[in-house]
Order: sequence, then structure tokens, then C-alpha cells
Amino acid sequence: MRVSVIGGSSIGPETAAVAEALGERLAERGHVVVCGGLGGVMEAVCRGARSNDGETVGILPTDDRRDANPHVTVPIATGLGHARNALVVMNGDAAVAVDGASGTLSEIGLALAQGRPVAGLDTHDVEGVAAVDSPTAAVEYVERAARPD
Amino acid sequence: MRVSVIGGSSIGPETAAVAEALGERLAERGHVVVCGGLGGVMEAVCRGARSNDGETVGILPTDDRRDANPHVTVPIATGLGHARNALVVMNGDAAVAVDGASGTLSEIGLALAQGRPVAGLDTHDVEGVAAVDSPTAAVEYVERAARPD
Amino acid sequence: MRVSVIGGSSIGPETAAVAEALGERLAERGHVVVCGGLGGVMEAVCRGARSNDGETVGILPTDDRRDANPHVTVPIATGLGHARNALVVMNGDAAVAVDGASGTLSEIGLALAQGRPVAGLDTHDVEGVAAVDSPTAAVEYVERAARPD
Amino acid sequence: MRVSVIGGSSIGPETAAVAEALGERLAERGHVVVCGGLGGVMEAVCRGARSNDGETVGILPTDDRRDANPHVTVPIATGLGHARNALVVMNGDAAVAVDGASGTLSEIGLALAQGRPVAGLDTHDVEGVAAVDSPTAAVEYVERAARPD
Repeated sequence: MRVSVIGGSSIGPETAAVAEALGERLAERGHVVVCGGLGGVMEAVCRGARSNDGETVGILPTDDRRDANPHVTVPIATGLGHARNALVVMNGDAAVAVDGASGTLSEIGLALAQGRPVAGLDTHDVEGVAAVDSPTAAVEYVERAARPD
Repeated sequence: MRVSVIGGSSIGPETAAVAEALGERLAERGHVVVCGGLGGVMEAVCRGARSNDGETVGILPTDDRRDANPHVTVPIATGLGHARNALVVMNGDAAVAVDGASGTLSEIGLALAQGRPVAGLDTHDVEGVAAVDSPTAAVEYVERAARPD
Repeated sequence: MRVSVIGGSSIGPETAAVAEALGERLAERGHVVVCGGLGGVMEAVCRGARSNDGETVGILPTDDRRDANPHVTVPIATGLGHARNALVVMNGDAAVAVDGASGTLSEIGLALAQGRPVAGLDTHDVEGVAAVDSPTAAVEYVERAARPD
Repeated sequence: MRVSVIGGSSIGPETAAVAEALGERLAERGHVVVCGGLGGVMEAVCRGARSNDGETVGILPTDDRRDANPHVTVPIATGLGHARNALVVMNGDAAVAVDGASGTLSEIGLALAQGRPVAGLDTHDVEGVAAVDSPTAAVEYVERAARPD
């Protein structure tokens, strides 16, 4: 399935390690990573997925697909600015939030509004988000919770 | 100035009364109401604003401006679905959240991500949202906090 | 009704005079002008409409409503870039194209795709666009052709 | 490189054969096909590209990626309706138009407005579109004309 990974664009090494491990695990399980295509959590999760030959879709706010981080295999330019957040979560069967600030909060809201299950790793404490304590637990949660396609 | 009012589309009479009083107060102070144009909080705040001859802009998710509630003076069709949430908060100088579920949460996130001050009336407990206890206090907050244009 | 006016952003004085006369006529007939909110034809038609106290809605490609020309009474920021063209024609009951290059061509296509009648003043020669020879004839055409709301 | 292929959603067998041959040729040359993801020209070009193991990106107007035709390898849901046309041409380095009605006309306009070279196979006669007489000539044109990335 496809899993949207959302999170901060400006992160420390510890969060980067979590996001990278999440990407590795998602690719190992055969899932496609969908993200916003830029830096921080988006780049780390793509790097992890690529280390296991996973596919990584980056849905960018800008109109130039060359703005994607180097680990995105399918960059999608939108030119929509903040409105592209809706597309990031629409294109996954479930979402995992890692850390993150207000942009991530908007994506959590948009994911829930569109009926996507959301796992949270050290992120906003929001009703409807399943707090998990490891990338492996996040993947287990979304595999269980995602509606079958 | 313009104030985006965000909140649930399915509400009880108590929340409707709060939203209506907020609309009355905003119009009394000369502010334009921007909202999502549909029912619930969106309709109540427009009804209140109209009772004081205020202007009400409704930015709709659908492609048909006739979907606006009857108290919207300027309906704007977008056909963007959930992505239109970004436009609702982009078009205000500040936002007031009233009650609301995941759609409102996404708008709070989008408002904060775009640097808009947000006052909250019985809504999500989110860092960056100023919890206030009355429509009057909400209006006072956004008047103080909005960046001068 | 509402009439979307589309056309070039970089125009000469003759085209500006046509667009301004079109705005005057639309407002005189009680119609609201919808446009892209920027310069050239967009500014001239708004200036004309305002001279007759008409309402002018400007749907901007940028995320800052202060980018609107000074004759827009209701600026709407979108941050959507070129994708906002769809909203410009969606928000009118009919469209009038004046001069214009590829952006205008895209709006003509989007108007026709959304079932809007289109009158053309010295613009692209496209099947489905009614070529007219004066602002008055353009207004007569859209009044006749627009589907009743 | 990536080539956006735009064209009618309701076509006859002759146009389908042209679009399919275009897809075959694009994939043979190593190019990725970007299209609107639905039927008609969009489906035929994807079918052709897949017969040569090409990658096919389908940028859909709906919010459900399962609406893509079966030959799309990377479906992207947008929920943007007609506004998604801007994304279809933004995500190619060049475009080829095959047949088509007003939706295709809008995409030609959007492609030209975004500086993409456009080849036309039996499509609208528009200034800036290079009319070609075969899929092979279309591919040669866009290879020559696309700006180097």
C-alpha cells in the first residue's frame, strides 16, 4: 500500500534517524512512501526507503520538480503552496506523523478529515492519532488500520 | 480587517449561538468575515455578521457557488475539495476557531503555518492558539495580534 | 449575474480602453466582474466597473491579497499559481475574453470545459467563442447565453 | 525526460491508435509519460508506453487514485477538478496534444504559459503549437525543443 509520511522540514539527528528507520521499514514491507518531497523528515524517510529500493513519491508545494530531495523517485510539482498538503495525505492509504510543527498539524487534520488512519511518532497529541513508540510499531499500526483497497 | 472563522459544519444550538454572536461582533467592529461558506459554524457566523450588515466571504470546496449558505454575500467556488481549507485561512488577517473536528484542526494548522494569529473558542487545544472565553475576547485578541497591513 | 473577464496582463492603450468600456457597461447593467485581479485587461476592466460603482472580484495567483490591482473590491488570494485560472472562470456565469496570450487561451478552454458561454473581443479564434465587435455586443451576448441561475 | 500527453477523453479507434503509438515511441526512447490518468487519449498513450515497459504518471482530477486507467503506474489523486490541468503540463518537460476538445485547449494554453514546447497531432490550431504528422515526429520535436534539465 501507500503510506504518507508527514513531519517537520527542520529536524535534529535523532528525529532524522527515526524517519530514516521508518522509511527502511516501509520499503522492506513493500510499501510506497508518499511525502511532501522536501527536507527534514521528508528527506530522511525517502533516504531510508531508497536503501531498501522502495518507491518514494514527493508531492511538492513548488512548480519545479527539481526542488525534490535526491531520494524522491517520483517528484510531482504542484505549484499549490500550502494547499498541496491535502494531496500529500490524499495519496496515501494511511499516514505516519513524525515530529513536526504547524504544517504537520494541518496534514494530520487533513488525513483524519479524509478518513486516513494516522500513527504518531513523537508528534502532536491529537484525538484520532495513534501514538506509537517505534517505526516498527507505526508500520504495524497502519497495516492493521488502513482500509483495504 | 478580514477574519477567517473556522469551525464545525455540524453543531448544536449553543455553539451556533456563540458563532452568531462572534459574527455580530466582527461586523460591528467593521471586520469582514471569511469562512468556508457552508453550514454549522460557517452559517451561524455569517448570519450574525449580516444582522449588522457585515460582508461575508464564503470560500467553498465545491465548484458551484450556489452551494453557499444564504448569509454569504460573496461566494467563491473553488472545486478544490479539502485543499480549499488553505484558502480560507490565507484570506484572513487572523482566524477564530469555534468548536470543530478534523477539518477545523487542519485549518488551525494551515493558519499557523501561514503566520496568522488564531483565537480559539472551545476548540482544539493546540500550541499557538489563544484560548478565549467569549466572542468579544476573540475579537479583541485578533485585533491586537493581527499584523498590521 | 457574474461575468468573468479574461485577457492579457500586458496590453496597449487601445485594448485598455476596450476593457475599461467593458467594465463600465457590465457595471451599468448590474453585473459583477470576476477577474484574475492583476494588471492589463484585469485592471482596466475593474477600473471601468468601479467608475459605475460595480463590484469587482479578483482571484489572484499569489497568496497575498495585497497583490490585487487597486480597483478590485474583493481580492481573493489563492497561492495556486496557474491553477487559479480554473477558479476565475468557474466563478462567472459567462466569460468575455479580451485580447490575451496563452494564459487567456487556457481560461477560454477552462470556461468552455465548464460550460460557460464565452464572448471574444479581438482574442483567440477558437470554436465555441462568439466573436463580437464591441463591449456592448459582448454584454448582450453573455446576457443572452448565460444559463439562468 | 518527462512528456505530458494531453487529449480527448472520448475518442475513436483511429485517434486511439495514434495515441498508443505515441506511448510506445515515448517509452522506447526512455521518456516518462505524464497524463490526466483517465480514458481516451490518456488511456491509449499509457497502454502504448506500458507495452514498452515505460513509466506512466496519471494526475487525476478526483480524490481517489483508483479512478486511474489500468495502465497508469503512478496514479496521483488531486481532488482539484479542472484545476488539475495545470499540474498535468507542469510535470512534463514538454507536451504533445492529440485531438481533444476544450479541456485539451486549456492544457495547451497552460503548457505554453509555463514555457513548455508543445507538439500537436491533429489538434487545435494554436500559435505556438508545432503541428506534426506522426508520433515519431512528435517525439523528435519535443526532444529537440525541451529545455535541458
